[in-house]
Amino acid sequence: MAAPLATAGVVAGIGFTVGLAGDACHVASGTTRYEWSGVPEIWHSQVWFPFLVAGAVMAAAWVGERAELPAVRARTRRDAVAGAALVLALYALTALLRGEPATVSVVLTGALALAIWSWWDPSAGAFAVAAGAAVAGPAVEIVVVALDGASYADDGLFGVAPWLPCLYFAAGAVAAGLWAAIARDGA
Amino acid sequence: MAAPLATAGVVAGIGFTVGLAGDACHVASGTTRYEWSGVPEIWHSQVWFPFLVAGAVMAAAWVGERAELPAVRARTRRDAVAGAALVLALYALTALLRGEPATVSVVLTGALALAIWSWWDPSAGAFAVAAGAAVAGPAVEIVVVALDGASYADDGLFGVAPWLPCLYFAAGAVAAGLWAAIARDGA
Amino acid sequence: MAAPLATAGVVAGIGFTVGLAGDACHVASGTTRYEWSGVPEIWHSQVWFPFLVAGAVMAAAWVGERAELPAVRARTRRDAVAGAALVLALYALTALLRGEPATVSVVLTGALALAIWSWWDPSAGAFAVAAGAAVAGPAVEIVVVALDGASYADDGLFGVAPWLPCLYFAAGAVAAGLWAAIARDGA
Repeated sequence: MAAPLATAGVVAGIGFTVGLAGDACHVASGTTRYEWSGVPEIWHSQVWFPFLVAGAVMAAAWVGERAELPAVRARTRRDAVAGAALVLALYALTALLRGEPATVSVVLTGALALAIWSWWDPSAGAFAVAAGAAVAGPAVEIVVVALDGASYADDGLFGVAPWLPCLYFAAGAVAAGLWAAIARDGA
Repeated sequence: MAAPLATAGVVAGIGFTVGLAGDACHVASGTTRYEWSGVPEIWHSQVWFPFLVAGAVMAAAWVGERAELPAVRARTRRDAVAGAALVLALYALTALLRGEPATVSVVLTGALALAIWSWWDPSAGAFAVAAGAAVAGPAVEIVVVALDGASYADDGLFGVAPWLPCLYFAAGAVAAGLWAAIARDGA
Repeated sequence: MAAPLATAGVVAGIGFTVGLAGDACHVASGTTRYEWSGVPEIWHSQVWFPFLVAGAVMAAAWVGERAELPAVRARTRRDAVAGAALVLALYALTALLRGEPATVSVVLTGALALAIWSWWDPSAGAFAVAAGAAVAGPAVEIVVVALDGASYADDGLFGVAPWLPCLYFAAGAVAAGLWAAIARDGA
């Protein structure tokens, strides 16, 4: 097993990278806008965003690890590349959905999120972490929007996009098993 | 093995749910329109549609089970979630293709349908059921359109969308092994 | 093992088919345009294009086979259907990205390409062939564009589309293991 600190660093790095690249898609496409002025930026993001995502991914991964919920599939470092890539692809896909009916964007994103959970680790534990992320992530963003920190072009869900819980669901499902996948040797 | 009646119920329920949610995407996006008036609706669908899909999925699943064609991959209940989710994602994706050239929509939908068959169960039996669905499904819809029951925005294939056989192919491929997947214990 | 000549033929045929169908999507959607006049055409392509792709896929497959780099996953003929279908789906998807910001199209295509590599064979060897294809493929197309043989609607990368290296990456990753997959018996 890798040292816990190294594992935490890799997990946080994956969260930071996916958050940064995905957010760049949202900003570039006009899906989201930062509204606070004078905040330093990295690529298209205000500096707090990728760090927030990194922290959230690390927290979800830590919860998934500590809870010792039995995984259906034991994932490895190689799988973690595919998991992170699929979540990022779903993130980028949502940047193409601006102006689409909520029915279409939610069903499409939701079905893909369910497929990602079901492929990565169709366990009750991963589902619970994913469902928690689907509630907590949008809740935090709703607060940011309410504080005039950001805005969504499609704002039908209390100021955020209706498909946002589905994206967090997919991210949470993969994050739930990410610590074990990265810590596992010889992967 | 689960009791046949329970298995039939779950299979029909999956067909009903995927049909209802996918059709909602088609109607919400203007990909399809119901033309008969005075028919009761569930969500965006006229009531007969999801029941027809449920029956068709159950029939395909029953044929796939009774034909006892050898499966290349033995699928389980967990896989069935992924299979249904991927077919629904493909269904929702077709709702984004309105106005795209038929070449693009057919190649994209066809390649993804082939990948779904190839992942779920790349057997000759599943291919046969999928090919049968790709002919029978659009044929029924062509009749419905001819009877002025519905219309497609892109109607290049005798009144229905040119990618419709590809969507039915994917649904048929998964349905072919759905009975066995649901009936299998301990999945 | 299949005879080398038969294997070469199947590999070239896959490259030809994917190149022809994918290019048809690009031309039909206006993603690319042929500019030389008087050249015979097959479907939407000038005749040299699918043969060039077939040769490139055969070359990449031959390099992948001869280099004897250890594969992480031993792929079979059945897997080759899924691999070719996913690369073709990615090809068709890029035909929908015209006019999207480069950030979105590159992140989406790149994440999916990485996922394809990571699913097909997450080995260093496949990555090396994929990376080589991601450089060599666009380089050849940049020369064709510079010679006024073709043009891209989105031409931000020296005349070609910015997501083009990602598409070649995915194609190269699958091509790297295609010879072994086709040659393997009983697949």
